[in-house]
Amino acid sequence: MNHYQQTLRIQTTGKSLTRITRQIETTVSDAGIEMGLCTLFLRHTSASLVIQENADPDVLVDLENFFAKLVPESGYYIHSAEGPDDMPAHIRTALTHTSEQIPIARGRLVLGTWQGIYIWEHRQRRHHRELVVHISGN
Amino acid sequence: MNHYQQTLRIQTTGKSLTRITRQIETTVSDAGIEMGLCTLFLRHTSASLVIQENADPDVLVDLENFFAKLVPESGYYIHSAEGPDDMPAHIRTALTHTSEQIPIARGRLVLGTWQGIYIWEHRQRRHHRELVVHISGN
Amino acid sequence: MNHYQQTLRIQTTGKSLTRITRQIETTVSDAGIEMGLCTLFLRHTSASLVIQENADPDVLVDLENFFAKLVPESGYYIHSAEGPDDMPAHIRTALTHTSEQIPIARGRLVLGTWQGIYIWEHRQRRHHRELVVHISGN
Repeated sequence: MNHYQQTLRIQTTGKSLTRITRQIETTVSDAGIEMGLCTLFLRHTSASLVIQENADPDVLVDLENFFAKLVPESGYYIHSAEGPDDMPAHIRTALTHTSEQIPIARGRLVLGTWQGIYIWEHRQRRHHRELVVHISGN
Repeated sequence: MNHYQQTLRIQTTGKSLTRITRQIETTVSDAGIEMGLCTLFLRHTSASLVIQENADPDVLVDLENFFAKLVPESGYYIHSAEGPDDMPAHIRTALTHTSEQIPIARGRLVLGTWQGIYIWEHRQRRHHRELVVHISGN
Repeated sequence: MNHYQQTLRIQTTGKSLTRITRQIETTVSDAGIEMGLCTLFLRHTSASLVIQENADPDVLVDLENFFAKLVPESGYYIHSAEGPDDMPAHIRTALTHTSEQIPIARGRLVLGTWQGIYIWEHRQRRHHRELVVHISGN
């Protein structure tokens, strides 16, 4: 049993999903684990993780549009000092995921055909986001 | 430390929750792990995992009704070529879970008394869904 | 590779978030794992886990206000025998998290500067909630 850990620094763009499948696959490959588990952990509270469709980019636009409407910046929030997009970003993070797990088989993530891994930036401006990739297995 | 991995193929029914607690418990029992961790990973983007009440089936109906209203098929979505239920299914998946983890103690999942494990089918039609069960421990 | 498991019993207050970062850090420290993974699993379906901002307590109030409005107690639910707050509590749990994972490095959780770990009580009354902490690593 081995453990392997790496922190990736990902550049996002504002209010959109950035696909990171390839970086994670490279990290898994570097770890040399044949069978095991890959855990992703995002070190932020205004960006999150989702596993979503990787084929039609319109899906990503619809996701963003839906969440922008569900958690409007025009809503009333007590916590407003960091800008109108900050509290909605915290709520959107609570509604999605800070951690994700994907098993590894034959040295590769067992993602379905249509699954991609994304960081969802919930702030208006782009950010550098830190993602810890933890891999365990044999 | 051992790793054990199995892919289950689960038949769902449209727009409803299918309980899979028993299949997962059987898989854990087969793995022969006394103390460890069970990770579930669903290889799809229009169905998801939730851990929910296992007693009153009305809870499952209320969950489905709430999500049907929160993410209406009648909404405007750019991604509409795969039918009116497809984009809502992706959004409902983002709002729930693609992976879940349940610790194992004394050879069994540490589920609470009222917790059941469910696959939530978000499309109108039934599907076969692939669930990877990854178990590690001693 | 070692496994370590402990069940914490946490006292919540009604409809609010209780920070548990310190208890989890103590458990990680007790486990003596330098590099590994910490999994949290809440044994309930009307309370949940979130990783959220730890600085401004107003964020927690805004989170609660948003969810109270998104999943109103005044809504129509078939499952109503356990009180008007019970079915909304199940829905709020589905929208947030029953399990969370946080990698461990140099004996500590790799939480970001602004991240705290919370149990979110979704019922009106305070409860004792059981949280299983599973730690694996070297």
